[in-house]
Amino acid sequence: MEFAQDLLRPLLDGQFRALARAISWMENGHPQARELMARVWPHMGRAAVIGLTGAPGAGKSTLTDQLARALRAEGKRVGILAVDPTSPFSGGAILGDRIRMNHIADDPGIFIRSMATRGALGGLARATQDAIDLLDAAGFDVVLVETVGVGQDEVDVVSCVQTCVVVLIPGMGDEIQALKAGIIEVADLFVINKADRDGVEKVEREIEGMKSLSPTRSWDPPLLRTVAAQGEGIAEVLTKVREHGVWLRAHGGLQRKAWERARLRFSCLLAEEASRRACARAGQAKVESLIAAIAERHLDPYAAVAEVLDSA
Amino acid sequence: MEFAQDLLRPLLDGQFRALARAISWMENGHPQARELMARVWPHMGRAAVIGLTGAPGAGKSTLTDQLARALRAEGKRVGILAVDPTSPFSGGAILGDRIRMNHIADDPGIFIRSMATRGALGGLARATQDAIDLLDAAGFDVVLVETVGVGQDEVDVVSCVQTCVVVLIPGMGDEIQALKAGIIEVADLFVINKADRDGVEKVEREIEGMKSLSPTRSWDPPLLRTVAAQGEGIAEVLTKVREHGVWLRAHGGLQRKAWERARLRFSCLLAEEASRRACARAGQAKVESLIAAIAERHLDPYAAVAEVLDSA
Repeated sequence: MEFAQDLLRPLLDGQFRALARAISWMENGHPQARELMARVWPHMGRAAVIGLTGAPGAGKSTLTDQLARALRAEGKRVGILAVDPTSPFSGGAILGDRIRMNHIADDPGIFIRSMATRGALGGLARATQDAIDLLDAAGFDVVLVETVGVGQDEVDVVSCVQTCVVVLIPGMGDEIQALKAGIIEVADLFVINKADRDGVEKVEREIEGMKSLSPTRSWDPPLLRTVAAQGEGIAEVLTKVREHGVWLRAHGGLQRKAWERARLRFSCLLAEEASRRACARAGQAKVESLIAAIAERHLDPYAAVAEVLDSA
Repeated sequence: MEFAQDLLRPLLDGQFRALARAISWMENGHPQARELMARVWPHMGRAAVIGLTGAPGAGKSTLTDQLARALRAEGKRVGILAVDPTSPFSGGAILGDRIRMNHIADDPGIFIRSMATRGALGGLARATQDAIDLLDAAGFDVVLVETVGVGQDEVDVVSCVQTCVVVLIPGMGDEIQALKAGIIEVADLFVINKADRDGVEKVEREIEGMKSLSPTRSWDPPLLRTVAAQGEGIAEVLTKVREHGVWLRAHGGLQRKAWERARLRFSCLLAEEASRRACARAGQAKVESLIAAIAERHLDPYAAVAEVLDSA
């Protein structure tokens, strides 16, 4: 078995192979995962973490790639995490990587990773948080976290990054409804991508309308237009992201975000670890027999869970 | 306090107020929730459960409403659960209900409920499963579970219903990529809604392409076209849903789905309950101090969780 102390130095040096392995350890619950996180923990806290979310097809990947390029042009080292929860079985993550490869995957200053965990509740959010920390410790200046879906896990992930960018496109009137208040309330910045299409003003009016229904915030999320495929508007997005960072520092926002993120990390990990321990205590055979009893309607799920937890 | 035994009879009689209250009990973790589920449990197992998922803006709500109308015309009682995970803070669920109201909310044979839990990991999937069971026990013939998002929670919810309908629309080439293998693999039926728009054949080709990349299944998910807003194609969807039900019964699929669902229910509930108990044992003050320590970077999350669990 490899040990955490062996991985630590190459990881802190920013070596891609060590980083990839460390993220896999976290995803898969490697026996040394906890030890590694403990050793890495003192070395982090410097990276700017930017989340990008929005409806499928809004061009989040393209926008992410362009932001990464622009940051590279400034000499920054950039990590990209593509959170891909719709691939519980196979394929999705690999597909996502392959599409991206052609654009920026050859740049030695850009580390790209698709995060797609299999099944564990909250495990994706937890593993993504771990990966952000590892990139931070490995000396990346900026971590871009891009979500593919628009579900609860994704809202959880992006709501506690430093700056949350919500990406929309023209001609998606219905979709604004679908994004709804949850996303609107976590947005620090709205980007209307594919802004060379008809209907930009309409989306802008709709966003303004949704904003007016939400509680007033001391940071008023700006609306920007981009055509990411042509690189248009990218510089403005980075400018606003930086303004938001300045605002956060001036208004105690960094502490608040750190606290939200700590709460999320604690909850995800507690749920995972408490479940794991309870199942280990009860034994796999017992757990399977309880699940069978639920499926056959001999036992309700609440009673089954109580049986596992009460026997501890 | 109200007791489970008082709610049981009106619930089994299918009274809407009792049903609404029972679902709220499950959502909010009412002290009598477990007792109620134990009493309700022997009375269920008859309802057909159909999930509808797909990209925002695909017209899932309209399709759901039309399916409900068609089922009503056959004299069926229909429950609709709109799973709305993008509204962790406010507004979303209410908005969804209001849009629907005009159409079918006056029908006494249709019970509609938006499910939107606040924060708890896996809590939405768990509460939705509880609500399905309650509708089943209350004598509803069909439960339609419609998801708003396309995240992990939603995949979890629809992957273990009886028949999973994936709704797409023409002109969303990129979105097919975004839905990816996870959704493709859980689909029992593809519906291309808004099929009066250009690009139907293109979507169909893309779905066939995605299907060809997935493992072969003994049930080959059919592709159907609808224009839900005009009621076109609805009868065909119901026919295929029924064919899928027949197929499931003939191939042991109902037991398999029941087992998957039992596993999901057990996992969700175990994570919630094990976390709750661990926090209760440690005490709220201790938990908050650990979260603060993570936020201030004195302690890594793995160590914090171990501290809560080891002290038990």
